[in-house]
Amino acid sequence: MTAKKDHLSALAGASLEKRIEELALFSDTPDCLTRLTLGPAHRRAADEVASWMREAGMSVHIDATGSVVGRYETGSPSKTLLVGSHIDTVRNAGRYDGAYGVIAAIAAVHTLNRNKRRLPFAIEVIAFADEEGVRFPSALSSSRAVAGSFDPACLDDRDAQGTSRGDALRTFGCDPSAIDQLARDPASILGYLELHIEQGPVLQAKNLACGAVTAINGATRGEIFLEGYAGHAGTLPMDMRRDALAAAAEIILKIEETARNTAGLVATVGRIETPGGAVNIVPGRVIMSLDLRSPDDISRAAALGSIRKQIADISVKRNIQARLDVSYDMAAAPCDTQLQNMIKTSMTCSGLPSFSLPSGAGHDGLSFRGRIPIGMIFIRCRDGVSHNPAEYSSPADMETGARLLHETILTLGGHP
Amino acid sequence: MTAKKDHLSALAGASLEKRIEELALFSDTPDCLTRLTLGPAHRRAADEVASWMREAGMSVHIDATGSVVGRYETGSPSKTLLVGSHIDTVRNAGRYDGAYGVIAAIAAVHTLNRNKRRLPFAIEVIAFADEEGVRFPSALSSSRAVAGSFDPACLDDRDAQGTSRGDALRTFGCDPSAIDQLARDPASILGYLELHIEQGPVLQAKNLACGAVTAINGATRGEIFLEGYAGHAGTLPMDMRRDALAAAAEIILKIEETARNTAGLVATVGRIETPGGAVNIVPGRVIMSLDLRSPDDISRAAALGSIRKQIADISVKRNIQARLDVSYDMAAAPCDTQLQNMIKTSMTCSGLPSFSLPSGAGHDGLSFRGRIPIGMIFIRCRDGVSHNPAEYSSPADMETGARLLHETILTLGGHP
Repeated sequence: MTAKKDHLSALAGASLEKRIEELALFSDTPDCLTRLTLGPAHRRAADEVASWMREAGMSVHIDATGSVVGRYETGSPSKTLLVGSHIDTVRNAGRYDGAYGVIAAIAAVHTLNRNKRRLPFAIEVIAFADEEGVRFPSALSSSRAVAGSFDPACLDDRDAQGTSRGDALRTFGCDPSAIDQLARDPASILGYLELHIEQGPVLQAKNLACGAVTAINGATRGEIFLEGYAGHAGTLPMDMRRDALAAAAEIILKIEETARNTAGLVATVGRIETPGGAVNIVPGRVIMSLDLRSPDDISRAAALGSIRKQIADISVKRNIQARLDVSYDMAAAPCDTQLQNMIKTSMTCSGLPSFSLPSGAGHDGLSFRGRIPIGMIFIRCRDGVSHNPAEYSSPADMETGARLLHETILTLGGHP
Repeated sequence: MTAKKDHLSALAGASLEKRIEELALFSDTPDCLTRLTLGPAHRRAADEVASWMREAGMSVHIDATGSVVGRYETGSPSKTLLVGSHIDTVRNAGRYDGAYGVIAAIAAVHTLNRNKRRLPFAIEVIAFADEEGVRFPSALSSSRAVAGSFDPACLDDRDAQGTSRGDALRTFGCDPSAIDQLARDPASILGYLELHIEQGPVLQAKNLACGAVTAINGATRGEIFLEGYAGHAGTLPMDMRRDALAAAAEIILKIEETARNTAGLVATVGRIETPGGAVNIVPGRVIMSLDLRSPDDISRAAALGSIRKQIADISVKRNIQARLDVSYDMAAAPCDTQLQNMIKTSMTCSGLPSFSLPSGAGHDGLSFRGRIPIGMIFIRCRDGVSHNPAEYSSPADMETGARLLHETILTLGGHP
């Protein structure tokens, strides 16, 4: 008579929250959560996750990049569905980023197993080892290995203590020379599903627990250099000035306007300096950053072009020199339309409003762009706060998200 | 037959330039010109200036603040005309700032003396000891002593080596306890005339050698603090942002617009910071400086009020917190209308276009505001550059200015 309750208990908010707390105990630092990739806390967390996977009915191994991989066989499948997230963290991290997606995926498989659900594909739950890119300069190395785009040069990346990624992998118990065997044949993979906290404020503002992700945004980063003339703030008349900061102010507002007028685009000038500036000097130089993100690469490129044009126009008008150097350009990873539709169908069937939003932050799904269909589900987090100990998602929302993931897997398997 | 040439030679551009070069040799540093108040180079420069004054027909003493004072008697005068500038400099200074006004004043008196001009007033040429305020925290102390507004507390000001102004004065050979006897009875003083390089680009742009100063601008300085919300540059949608830097950009442009729409006002945001800012963070905080200057205190106050209102409006619209703290407020020192008219009459009589402009930089005349009528003449300097080794005024312009000062003194004396 408690059978149904038991079958569902893995997906219960309280169960998920308990595991969030348990996983957060594995930290390199005693006072806050820091679980850098391939460090001692990561090693212990991986063992714990492996035991949870086994308990859920999976056969488990740790792959050559340090990811924990649990395989759930469901017959004689021709294809495999990947479901995952990551268990490394930033420094002074929140407890939900990455961890939630892994815990919920295990709970979903646990529930399938308890209910003895037969599916026409195998499921592999992957707790990726290196998403954040905090310890070593490069990020996403473990999902890139699965995608077949691992860059062997990153084995020579070194952390702040001078340890190479290759040595860190060997200490972790991995064989870096086996990494190239991790690449999956896209024909054998049904897709990659990931459940994650939103890390933004949209779902909270919409009063929704969940949303289907349309794309992991592409991003452009750069620096804008402006050079006018540094004059005396008292003696230089307004009409003779070539004020680099006033030009910067016009540019900042044009950047904001461009983003407001471009659906899905966000644009940010996050940092500004007036080198050599002082209260009594008309600014001669300004350096400021630019960050553009969009689910749509074409509109991001168009916005960048428009911003370049506006910078040029303002420079001519104000008789200053200007330069925009792009230092980083990452294409968007659109989520697969069919997977999005299945997620939305599952939302509707679960009584949830069907809602979609882009992902402004990067995720392991980026590694699968153009290779494997990507599906992502976001759950609401408090005030959009992430990468911060104040990061929080409620047990109720975590349960809603985990149930939605479970439903989506069933829908994929042809179960109504 | 060379008498006329001799009589005028002190005012010749070549003579003035020679003395500019001679005075520039007195420096605390070998590679550039640095003649800080009451230092060893200042002491030797003061002796040289005293000898020039004696040669020009003046009786000379060094007053209790270290200023060199040369008195030129012209009969049994009831009043005294003060003519001066300063011989202290900033660090890595130009050669003309201050020095030119002292050298030209001596040349004018020299010429009067050679020509045995009788005037209904005495002339005192003063080479002020402390205008720049670089060595000690306070400035203008020697002209304040003459004006009767010397603050005895500044005797305790200390330089970077810990030497007090009082001790520096004693080392210089002065008796600080005699400073309060320097205050002049305004009834005995006809006015204060000063010739100075413009330190701005206006005369050069107008293609003029000289201008009559309308006022030494009043100034407001302050800091603007803006606080919005520091969010994730990727996940925070444009319409949910409270971007402190975008607000700052609007404010900077409003400040510029206010200055452009207010005659005589210059306004500068010279320094800006985004504390905690990064390329991928929507700026949560901005701190920026504000500098307002105007020959007219009422329009400066009105502009400040308008800027406060604009900051408030922008803050409400963008849902951010804003504060403007004023740290410095100095009233303008308007030049005396009668003295301005005499300078302009002398310009016309000398075949110069009559042109007026305000002084954006501070001068010793500020000390005489409301006490003694102030008259100032600016000469053109190259590109408005000052407080810099590249500071330059041509011998021709120096001669034009010195002749104009000489003419103005004669006009004051009732000579056509």
